[in-house]
Amino acid sequence: MGVYGGIEAGGTKIVCAVGTAPDDIRAEERYATGAPEDAIPRAVRFFQEHVAAGELDAVGIASFGPVDPDLKSPTWGHVTTTPKPGWAHTDFAGQIRRALGVPVGFDTDVNAAALGEHRWGAARGLHTFIYLTVGTGIGGGAMVEGKLLHGMMHPEMGHIRVPHDWAADPFQGACIYHGDCLEGLAAGPAIEARWGQRGETLPPNHPAWELEARYLALGAVNYTLTLAPQRIIMGGGVMAQTHLFPLIRRHVRALLADYLQVPQIASDLDRYVVPPELGGRAGVLGAIALAERAALGQG
Amino acid sequence: MGVYGGIEAGGTKIVCAVGTAPDDIRAEERYATGAPEDAIPRAVRFFQEHVAAGELDAVGIASFGPVDPDLKSPTWGHVTTTPKPGWAHTDFAGQIRRALGVPVGFDTDVNAAALGEHRWGAARGLHTFIYLTVGTGIGGGAMVEGKLLHGMMHPEMGHIRVPHDWAADPFQGACIYHGDCLEGLAAGPAIEARWGQRGETLPPNHPAWELEARYLALGAVNYTLTLAPQRIIMGGGVMAQTHLFPLIRRHVRALLADYLQVPQIASDLDRYVVPPELGGRAGVLGAIALAERAALGQG
Repeated sequence: MGVYGGIEAGGTKIVCAVGTAPDDIRAEERYATGAPEDAIPRAVRFFQEHVAAGELDAVGIASFGPVDPDLKSPTWGHVTTTPKPGWAHTDFAGQIRRALGVPVGFDTDVNAAALGEHRWGAARGLHTFIYLTVGTGIGGGAMVEGKLLHGMMHPEMGHIRVPHDWAADPFQGACIYHGDCLEGLAAGPAIEARWGQRGETLPPNHPAWELEARYLALGAVNYTLTLAPQRIIMGGGVMAQTHLFPLIRRHVRALLADYLQVPQIASDLDRYVVPPELGGRAGVLGAIALAERAALGQG
Repeated sequence: MGVYGGIEAGGTKIVCAVGTAPDDIRAEERYATGAPEDAIPRAVRFFQEHVAAGELDAVGIASFGPVDPDLKSPTWGHVTTTPKPGWAHTDFAGQIRRALGVPVGFDTDVNAAALGEHRWGAARGLHTFIYLTVGTGIGGGAMVEGKLLHGMMHPEMGHIRVPHDWAADPFQGACIYHGDCLEGLAAGPAIEARWGQRGETLPPNHPAWELEARYLALGAVNYTLTLAPQRIIMGGGVMAQTHLFPLIRRHVRALLADYLQVPQIASDLDRYVVPPELGGRAGVLGAIALAERAALGQG
């Protein structure tokens, strides 16, 4: 079994780890993301001793976006048009690969989290599923027929339009592009703007959660009908409110109205809309899973 | 080059053809779908002389649904729970394969049409795209990263929920399951119920079309954000109103609001939302493309 390095690069912090599986993480380091001139060499230094000891077979990078994960593209492995200072058009994967001399896997943070859940978590054995994160924004990664979804661009599932009952919810939406798209109605900032306080301070019986569950269910239903995933994993800060899950499932059932006669929906909804099993570790473990794929030549 | 048979099985008629490509169809027969006890043997008889002459390498079936296209399933190749008299739980592909002794490919009518457009039409060279049909219902097939999308079940893209402006459009929707889902608002029967006359009798400057274009654009936008297709092909009876295309593109652009900085959307929308190139031939040609795949062992 190989030993792999994972880099989870988020907007504010970077986590580097070396290991083989969730229960075998042999080294780990965290630091503020800062500028790429500091962040990338620091990751290289962290992995270098493992490479020197002959015990690092590949590195995977789960990066904030937008990124170019297309293996055939001349800018593969780059962070592309981000407004994050210093990072636009940075050859993230190329720098790591040249410095360490090992295969490098590279994808978005949400696709990596999806892959981590597929390798060790809530999506084991599935070929088609969605990993959705609901936090300061709403983002989604997906595996379809065994392949991570790239398509024309990284999907932006959070920005789909869903019905907005203005009488029941006069809040105009918080998305600067679309107003009341799903993210604009249901991400963390929308909850805070609508109710005047942060979601985590609202009690479980607050009407905010019924409304939140309905919006997230509308998203789940539209994704289900479009992509036909075998499961939808919902993580991120907002989903730490675990009482949302039964509410979301109830709305999914009502919205689909017995239309889909598949057991996953008809009788097994508790296992259809689920939290991640790797929790906050999905990102860095997903990066390690990306490394494993790269070592096996699966991109 | 192989010679293939295609069966396009629709709810009302069946088309059988033998050929190698759109410009080389060597025989063709059409008949009412009727009962499977008559329809399937008739298809067998049509192909039998070609098999006997050693000039048929495989057959593809593009079937009305619901069907089971999962190669690993014991009911692969069956029409499953259809209300169509006699057809429920019919082993369509198995009967053809046993009678003719050639490989058989099998998929939904929309996935086959998608494959046909990929092989010879508007999706040549693409790996991820959607084929949507807008007629008496709204259905979608998709190829994702080079594979036809099957997922948990055949996608039911037409039934996604989209914003419904009740003030502008008080029509309650025509879907018997969901009321005002996309199909309930925008398929042919919805147009007829809302305006009191069939769509093809409404002039191009009738307000029906602006509303229709907005709903179809909402669908296209949600599919784009979820599946990131490189192109959306829109066919079917309603799309014979070709003046809809520029209207749909205009609404897609407005709804996305400069959010997606990819050339397909930003500057090339005329080639992003397009009619099928094979037109009404996509189904039977798609069935021939399914046969070709089966002959090559690609399922």
